[in-house]
Amino acid sequence: MSAAENIELKPIGFVKTKAIGKEVKNKGNVSEIVFREDLAEALEGIEDFSHLFVIFWMHKISKEERKTMKVHPRGRMDMPLLGTFSTRTPYRPNPIGLTMVELLDVEKNVLTVRGLDAFDGTPVLDIKPFDKKDVAEDAKVPEWWMKLEKER
Amino acid sequence: MSAAENIELKPIGFVKTKAIGKEVKNKGNVSEIVFREDLAEALEGIEDFSHLFVIFWMHKISKEERKTMKVHPRGRMDMPLLGTFSTRTPYRPNPIGLTMVELLDVEKNVLTVRGLDAFDGTPVLDIKPFDKKDVAEDAKVPEWWMKLEKER
Repeated sequence: MSAAENIELKPIGFVKTKAIGKEVKNKGNVSEIVFREDLAEALEGIEDFSHLFVIFWMHKISKEERKTMKVHPRGRMDMPLLGTFSTRTPYRPNPIGLTMVELLDVEKNVLTVRGLDAFDGTPVLDIKPFDKKDVAEDAKVPEWWMKLEKER
Repeated sequence: MSAAENIELKPIGFVKTKAIGKEVKNKGNVSEIVFREDLAEALEGIEDFSHLFVIFWMHKISKEERKTMKVHPRGRMDMPLLGTFSTRTPYRPNPIGLTMVELLDVEKNVLTVRGLDAFDGTPVLDIKPFDKKDVAEDAKVPEWWMKLEKER
């Protein structure tokens, strides 16, 4: 496979939410992930996890926006100008979203989750069980990042 | 966008590692992520993070393997038969890998990382800064999962 080749994915499902605009950023939001019906079987056992990673496609990002190389985090001019990969901006070459959510309910091909910051109709690419053993306790982040965290 | 539509991604770079076969699972492995040269600018500021999420495309998984609906975790028959989304199996509709790695070094368009369980030549789709505040301290996992964790 060469760098010129493209990778094709098909959504496994779509996000359903009443939140609009900036409301989707609210960590308390409850959304549904409606899976393709042919994939319901692949969800068996998911109810035994309390948290999941959701990997989704930020479909509202345009081709032009995908070419962005640098941003001020959250568009704030008091923040340093940084490479897009050093931030969580949706303006990135492959606008893939990654969010840890709480799993509230499972009904056939529909998962109800809390904390998914994705718009209604967002294509979902994959989900993975979350385990806190996956994560670094001693992770270091830059000062600008901590400043933004504190303001949340 | 309808469920029938496909999503096209272009790799942002590729994994370079000397590890082969099962060696890639070794958490101590050091690999490189060689980014496309046109994306070097988008890495500015990444050196201030100690850990990253790497999202990659498990390119060795065949079209047939992507149709897998159920697996025994790690192929072990003493484990329950579960839906693929309830496991970390690479046999999933969109074989996307997600791994937290330690960032060791940055040189222009090349990141050196520890803990990336991906084969040489694996296309990388995205990277994201890791922050432990993203994760749930109280996450629950099933018994079979804990059993496998203990055996690591």
